[in-house]
Amino acid sequence: MNRLFHSPLSPFCRKVRLTLAEKRIEVELIEERYWEPTPDFLRRNPAGKVPVLRLEGRVLSESQAICEYLEEKFPDPALMPRNPEGRYEARRLCAWFDDKFHNEVTSKLLYERVNKKVMKQGYPDSKNVKMGAQKIKYHLDYMTWLLEQRRWLAGDAMTLADFTAAAHLSSLDYISDVDWNRSAAVKDWYAKIKSRPAFRTLLADQVPGFPQPSHYADLDF
Amino acid sequence: MNRLFHSPLSPFCRKVRLTLAEKRIEVELIEERYWEPTPDFLRRNPAGKVPVLRLEGRVLSESQAICEYLEEKFPDPALMPRNPEGRYEARRLCAWFDDKFHNEVTSKLLYERVNKKVMKQGYPDSKNVKMGAQKIKYHLDYMTWLLEQRRWLAGDAMTLADFTAAAHLSSLDYISDVDWNRSAAVKDWYAKIKSRPAFRTLLADQVPGFPQPSHYADLDF
Repeated sequence: MNRLFHSPLSPFCRKVRLTLAEKRIEVELIEERYWEPTPDFLRRNPAGKVPVLRLEGRVLSESQAICEYLEEKFPDPALMPRNPEGRYEARRLCAWFDDKFHNEVTSKLLYERVNKKVMKQGYPDSKNVKMGAQKIKYHLDYMTWLLEQRRWLAGDAMTLADFTAAAHLSSLDYISDVDWNRSAAVKDWYAKIKSRPAFRTLLADQVPGFPQPSHYADLDF
Repeated sequence: MNRLFHSPLSPFCRKVRLTLAEKRIEVELIEERYWEPTPDFLRRNPAGKVPVLRLEGRVLSESQAICEYLEEKFPDPALMPRNPEGRYEARRLCAWFDDKFHNEVTSKLLYERVNKKVMKQGYPDSKNVKMGAQKIKYHLDYMTWLLEQRRWLAGDAMTLADFTAAAHLSSLDYISDVDWNRSAAVKDWYAKIKSRPAFRTLLADQVPGFPQPSHYADLDF
């Protein structure tokens, strides 16, 4: 049985979950308290992070490397463009969200509000939360700018870049930290992604101590 | 003319410089003080980071996306394995160094000691420096473990993973922060990389205020 060791609100795990679901690869989800690593877990991934995917006997880590591998082994339906320029743009945007958006927004909002509580590391740092709330506006505006020129973030087809962005935004949406009224273009884009069958697994998540807000799983917001 | 906007000791720029040189793509190097971004620079890359590559009329950013693009457009000599499993392992290790090693070591040593001074952001935080000096040992040991099983980091051929690791280590070597005596396997590996023609551009770097140590460009250490 294929297994994904994950944490429900981790955007890196969500990106892999979306990719697996889109490609109809069945996995058993196993929640991992990676901040209290067991020797077993560290043996699976010396980096001590989630996601870790056990697939057909192989143990895989690092979300982008996993998704690229899944794309190469299970090319249908495609999540990467066919030409090098298109793939470049998809990869650039994956890095944009996993690096820049992650540092400026996800780590400032989600990690302060949720991870610190779950990991018993104290209270949110209000300076960080304020900074994250400020920066997300800039990122939503950047997405709007892209979506005014393209149907999807990296071009005219949906790609891994859309899943990467949706993975981060959906985790933040779980704690009601996305202002969907800021941009009609981004709201429409998210509604399209959210209604895909692949998204169902994310909408079913429940995190103890953080009840799911009513709009989170509502396909019409 | 192709141009790379870069900063000499940035490991992300070095990774792209190594890849360009290995594939014999000529570029003009332009130093960018990215921490004082000009409107021109931000127009080239809204992320406000280096490297930015202007190649055949296209403007490219994000080092991993750039290197994957170069690999696809200029496949010879190859820097990625031919099979998906090999490419997965190369990508996993690129992420290991660009993410984990970067956060635990590069940012704690290089950014504290050099970037802070160059950017006039104060003095090194000795707690960070101490932590980085501690963590690099663990990473050198992990590399040793890999190199005991393989000729290169990701397998039996040199890949982008080796360039990524060498990019980080060479920047730290410029400030004498790598203990090459810790591991004969890592030292041999670095000597092999360092003697490649592609490495010459890095060995010629000079950073004002940080004189190049004598061992840095010495191919026999």
